[in-house]
Amino acid sequence: MSQSNVVFATNRSTTREDLFARAEEISASLTKRAPELDREGRPPRDEIVKLKNAGLLNALHPTQIGGGGLDWVDGLRLVRILARGESSIGQLLGYHYVNSQYVYWALDEARAHALGSETVVKNLYWGAAVNPRDPGLVLTHRGNGYVLNGRKSFSTAAHVSDYINANAALDDKVVGFAVPTSRPGYTANDDWDNFGQRLSDSGSVEFHDFPVYEEDFVGAPTAPDAAPSVLSTFNTPFIQLVFVNFYLGTAEGALRAAVDYVRATTRPWVTSGVARAADDPYILERVGEFTAALKASVALADTAAAAVQAGLAKGHAVTARERGEAAAAAYAAKVHATHVSLDITSRVFELTGARSTAEKHRFDRFWRNVRTHTLHDPVFYKAKEVGEFVLNDKIPEVSLYS
Amino acid sequence: MSQSNVVFATNRSTTREDLFARAEEISASLTKRAPELDREGRPPRDEIVKLKNAGLLNALHPTQIGGGGLDWVDGLRLVRILARGESSIGQLLGYHYVNSQYVYWALDEARAHALGSETVVKNLYWGAAVNPRDPGLVLTHRGNGYVLNGRKSFSTAAHVSDYINANAALDDKVVGFAVPTSRPGYTANDDWDNFGQRLSDSGSVEFHDFPVYEEDFVGAPTAPDAAPSVLSTFNTPFIQLVFVNFYLGTAEGALRAAVDYVRATTRPWVTSGVARAADDPYILERVGEFTAALKASVALADTAAAAVQAGLAKGHAVTARERGEAAAAAYAAKVHATHVSLDITSRVFELTGARSTAEKHRFDRFWRNVRTHTLHDPVFYKAKEVGEFVLNDKIPEVSLYS
Amino acid sequence: MSQSNVVFATNRSTTREDLFARAEEISASLTKRAPELDREGRPPRDEIVKLKNAGLLNALHPTQIGGGGLDWVDGLRLVRILARGESSIGQLLGYHYVNSQYVYWALDEARAHALGSETVVKNLYWGAAVNPRDPGLVLTHRGNGYVLNGRKSFSTAAHVSDYINANAALDDKVVGFAVPTSRPGYTANDDWDNFGQRLSDSGSVEFHDFPVYEEDFVGAPTAPDAAPSVLSTFNTPFIQLVFVNFYLGTAEGALRAAVDYVRATTRPWVTSGVARAADDPYILERVGEFTAALKASVALADTAAAAVQAGLAKGHAVTARERGEAAAAAYAAKVHATHVSLDITSRVFELTGARSTAEKHRFDRFWRNVRTHTLHDPVFYKAKEVGEFVLNDKIPEVSLYS
Amino acid sequence: MSQSNVVFATNRSTTREDLFARAEEISASLTKRAPELDREGRPPRDEIVKLKNAGLLNALHPTQIGGGGLDWVDGLRLVRILARGESSIGQLLGYHYVNSQYVYWALDEARAHALGSETVVKNLYWGAAVNPRDPGLVLTHRGNGYVLNGRKSFSTAAHVSDYINANAALDDKVVGFAVPTSRPGYTANDDWDNFGQRLSDSGSVEFHDFPVYEEDFVGAPTAPDAAPSVLSTFNTPFIQLVFVNFYLGTAEGALRAAVDYVRATTRPWVTSGVARAADDPYILERVGEFTAALKASVALADTAAAAVQAGLAKGHAVTARERGEAAAAAYAAKVHATHVSLDITSRVFELTGARSTAEKHRFDRFWRNVRTHTLHDPVFYKAKEVGEFVLNDKIPEVSLYS
Repeated sequence: MSQSNVVFATNRSTTREDLFARAEEISASLTKRAPELDREGRPPRDEIVKLKNAGLLNALHPTQIGGGGLDWVDGLRLVRILARGESSIGQLLGYHYVNSQYVYWALDEARAHALGSETVVKNLYWGAAVNPRDPGLVLTHRGNGYVLNGRKSFSTAAHVSDYINANAALDDKVVGFAVPTSRPGYTANDDWDNFGQRLSDSGSVEFHDFPVYEEDFVGAPTAPDAAPSVLSTFNTPFIQLVFVNFYLGTAEGALRAAVDYVRATTRPWVTSGVARAADDPYILERVGEFTAALKASVALADTAAAAVQAGLAKGHAVTARERGEAAAAAYAAKVHATHVSLDITSRVFELTGARSTAEKHRFDRFWRNVRTHTLHDPVFYKAKEVGEFVLNDKIPEVSLYS
Repeated sequence: MSQSNVVFATNRSTTREDLFARAEEISASLTKRAPELDREGRPPRDEIVKLKNAGLLNALHPTQIGGGGLDWVDGLRLVRILARGESSIGQLLGYHYVNSQYVYWALDEARAHALGSETVVKNLYWGAAVNPRDPGLVLTHRGNGYVLNGRKSFSTAAHVSDYINANAALDDKVVGFAVPTSRPGYTANDDWDNFGQRLSDSGSVEFHDFPVYEEDFVGAPTAPDAAPSVLSTFNTPFIQLVFVNFYLGTAEGALRAAVDYVRATTRPWVTSGVARAADDPYILERVGEFTAALKASVALADTAAAAVQAGLAKGHAVTARERGEAAAAAYAAKVHATHVSLDITSRVFELTGARSTAEKHRFDRFWRNVRTHTLHDPVFYKAKEVGEFVLNDKIPEVSLYS
Repeated sequence: MSQSNVVFATNRSTTREDLFARAEEISASLTKRAPELDREGRPPRDEIVKLKNAGLLNALHPTQIGGGGLDWVDGLRLVRILARGESSIGQLLGYHYVNSQYVYWALDEARAHALGSETVVKNLYWGAAVNPRDPGLVLTHRGNGYVLNGRKSFSTAAHVSDYINANAALDDKVVGFAVPTSRPGYTANDDWDNFGQRLSDSGSVEFHDFPVYEEDFVGAPTAPDAAPSVLSTFNTPFIQLVFVNFYLGTAEGALRAAVDYVRATTRPWVTSGVARAADDPYILERVGEFTAALKASVALADTAAAAVQAGLAKGHAVTARERGEAAAAAYAAKVHATHVSLDITSRVFELTGARSTAEKHRFDRFWRNVRTHTLHDPVFYKAKEVGEFVLNDKIPEVSLYS
Repeated sequence: MSQSNVVFATNRSTTREDLFARAEEISASLTKRAPELDREGRPPRDEIVKLKNAGLLNALHPTQIGGGGLDWVDGLRLVRILARGESSIGQLLGYHYVNSQYVYWALDEARAHALGSETVVKNLYWGAAVNPRDPGLVLTHRGNGYVLNGRKSFSTAAHVSDYINANAALDDKVVGFAVPTSRPGYTANDDWDNFGQRLSDSGSVEFHDFPVYEEDFVGAPTAPDAAPSVLSTFNTPFIQLVFVNFYLGTAEGALRAAVDYVRATTRPWVTSGVARAADDPYILERVGEFTAALKASVALADTAAAAVQAGLAKGHAVTARERGEAAAAAYAAKVHATHVSLDITSRVFELTGARSTAEKHRFDRFWRNVRTHTLHDPVFYKAKEVGEFVLNDKIPEVSLYS
């Protein structure tokens, strides 16, 4: 994407408080523009620039190379904050965190440092092309390197990614690699047209003789069923926690919008006997119930994030069992956040009433957003995985879904 | 509206079976076109013509004057059938039933017969302008009659109504009247732009020196707080049962669409161990649960319809107590149908999976439709009214909501 | 059991109204004594005598032989009425209906008539020893007949049964038979000690050289996997509807008890601002919600009963498909009634408040009763069967559970 | 109560780890004996002795006077651990914590130190007689002091309390005081006979000319509506968090018992196609769902405990607003834990199946326990208070319920 409006984050010294304050500020601004942004449903180029300028893309990189130095607990909170304003922007920040931090888990230290530094200095947005339900990328040898061809039906942030992680078939093996999207042969299609997460830029991508070099490889090619290193599989619990946090942020945004609307606009019901809708006993009870459910889900999200972060902090010493226990906590959070966010985004209308369905508010976007993305992988199988852990002491089987 | 495409129903001899078969046929056709109709969101002129041609508008009128002779239990089933295809069309059929049958409850026999006969012969669609939360119509004397001025923020079927029931202030009193919309000074605005029931043509209407005559009056002007006759208050339990049945029809439509999609399109989950999504144990359980909930709600809807119909059948002999008991049954059905239809239209996506959120399917319309209209009046106050009846033996207080 | 207090039903001419009135009367009496009966948890010998004297045991037998001539829709309503007073008594009436009507489905006409007539004349209570999860009865040849030996861990009404249906292994086959319990070698043990359905007399039974004769056989011995006649498999949908109706009757009893208690005893909450608990908005809403859920489940129960009754009415002409469709309706009712009865019996305490947990009221019995019996077979597999029917057009596979 | 078996805690040096290990040990022992203890339902004298010997009663007192030095976050976790074993014991530990810590919030420093030290040295169990819904204690002047007369319908730990907080009318004022129960005129009645929390010793207490002295007073007598100091009102959010934690501990105990039972005893369902019940997809999903809900509620409980602890840590500088915000968090936790604990304790039977209802297991005790105590104050009014805070920025009005 064009970098012209980007102020490089390394020019700024940012504290944790700065990052959170900027996230809140961008979120508040998004809240105001969200109906319009949702209506248009375009790849959010300007919004990503704002995240870059705020230093938010680099928040999890080490301070030594100019990053924000935050851990994942904080990183996921930033995702939640952004999602309160606009759900897709929360998603995109979170996906970038996983995709850009992946270099530290999968590459040797020197290359990770080099790629991390380049990311920070250039303020790169990282995407991916790795949907495992939709294989189809093939690397073939050409000259002193390779060319990549094929298509992925779904991506995230396809238009706004500066760099991507991808994997492809190479001969009878599979290889992962990290490449800039600026090379020739990369096409992000404008075919994301779903009823939710409409800014998430999740359309198809195509590669036509896209050049890839051995130095782009993340590890050597392996047999398709080769076991990855434990550390490199932390992307799955973290991406699931990204989901958790932007679902919850979206639900928080929905509740906040509803509360504002009730205060300002909702008329008391004719038989309620109260002068203000905000004094209606049923509305008050529901606000209390939704708040309790959200607070519980958020508390679990933070607890699970701390557990996965603690595993990550062990580096290459982390065991499959430790990863599995932390992942089970993350997946319990996923199950809970799915239910809570769907319930609240559908039921806030009980507070706001009939006129709140006017198109201009687009209050249905909250439900449409969580309804769309909570189908990423079936919640009942996540519940089953948690059950297997508790009942049969089986840790989740490692995959790009688990 | 233009009558040019209308085949007059009185030319046809129709049996109950005919009417149900035609309703099913139109519903099936609507199912196919529903995504497109929902996308466009225009007043459904052509669809109303189809209802007219099928004799469905006259289904509840006596056979003696050429009507279908069905009772309300059947009439509400027709609403449900239509709503399976497209929710707004179910709504419009049901509103018409209440508005056109109202003449039998509120007018003396001779005028009711005359107006009923005219309705059948001309195959008229009946609307209304009576939203009690939004007063504002005023009658003033002019010449040998009156003129009507004012605005209603919401209506139903404003563009397609041939006749409407309305009420207005007249001096210090209130008077109801029934008038054709073809008189000068009637304007239906194109300002219905809500996220659901997008074909329901529920925008504002305006009256500018619209002529009204004493012979249009439905009863004499009364003090604003005068008690209406019991029979004339059956419009409220029936309109609430119209809601119930188009909510349930919409949910049935959602479940049917989901089942079709699962059979044809949904891929089995990667860890499910089954070859077809339709064999997934969790999907099967949910289909069973949704089916059970829907069948229960439908059974209650039919039971409540029979109760209100039995009250109606007593004619002017019906007591306030009898009306109240039947209304309490209808409102219990309303409470239940609200929960069931919202739950199912949101959760069918658990069956269909991630790709089913593509805009082309517009599967979110089911939830958007029930979410929008279930806010007509707060469900918690309906539950409270049922509670008052059971706990304190208080029948619902008569109003346009109860 | 001793017949000394039994007035034979055939001495009385009973109408449908009589039977319902007597059921209501016995139910009201049970309501008063239920805490004490539940505390004691004894086989309800006296209560069965009352059912006999009221003609309720014979309600479904043809009037020609002195029965009440009711169909199953009414019979199941009687079960529900009794269960309002005491859950186990509802269960026992329903089990008797299935066990005693079974002769008409499984025996040739002459023997069915003879056994039916004997049942009516002697006012016999019918039980069973057929739990399929717990085989263990064996017939062996002795003299001109057989002797039965073995044990069933669970039964129903073991102490009060005059006649039972049973099945047992005979050589390498299986045979069903109907026998009086008065023969030597029948022992009903006093080992039913579960936390619910404490009067249901569901302990173990043992047979020690219990004589059985070929004329007791219900059909010839068959291979263990032989397919029974369709008509003879109606016992399963009917026994499941018995469950449905005594669950719902129990929940109705719980709600009624709670409503009575709220009116008479519950104090208004300190911050409620109302003078009577019965005016509390939250209590009123919950009464409304519970009422709506119960009415829906009851309406479905009646609808499903009518469907199975309609299949039964076809006699031996009924097809497996027709039986399957009706059974699927019954199982949907089972799924729904399970949820509703558990929810309401647990949540009525929100109405009644802290002091209502005093042991003297034993209000927990409602939940204990439905919680205990709803585990008869897992509700999720019933939901799955309904799902198989809707999604894959598979009728439920015939078994003693389905 | 008799102190003869008590090893004084001050003789032992205890670390945080020690205290948690001993709590786990006692909890495990309680798990084994819980069915028997519940059946008997006696005041748990021996169990309190064990808590004393383990140093658990003194866990929150400062280390300087021989206490464990734990904060409330840990204290409430200890409550949860104990409740996993036996719900009433968790309750009693928690009530003691609030009643014994109250001296630090309501008394001047010197007296608090003296009374705290005496408590630790003598290893005293603290109860209370302050139920505000049931006034009735009266102080009258006699000699150089007072005598207390009257009755409280409910107490907690009446038989096992060494010291109690109480309040009473004195002339036209109200005064609080802390007194040993060993003085003459204190009677704990054996009239707690409710279906849950059967060991909680919650029967009535009576005072007959029970001597009270001015030095027992906790503050001077005040007008009945006088505002207490903010710090002294922390007992309410803490007692509510005690509720939260023993509800959740009870639910954890129920889930653990169910999981153990499924592994060891439950038979796979006949149509499940699995060899072990622990491999049943529906059982696994439910274990996952219950786990997710419990983890979320526990995470919120801990978060809320930290918030109230943070307010407490400000001492007399804490403001009403700070107390109110922390209390709102605690009440949100209360709302959530109520729902979760009721749901799980009722639904674990879906895992364990029909035979698990045998009286010998008394698995119904989990539901009976939470059902009984969650009625302490209506959950809908707690939800309303949370709603008032979020929607109208009103902090909970201070009372013994809020």
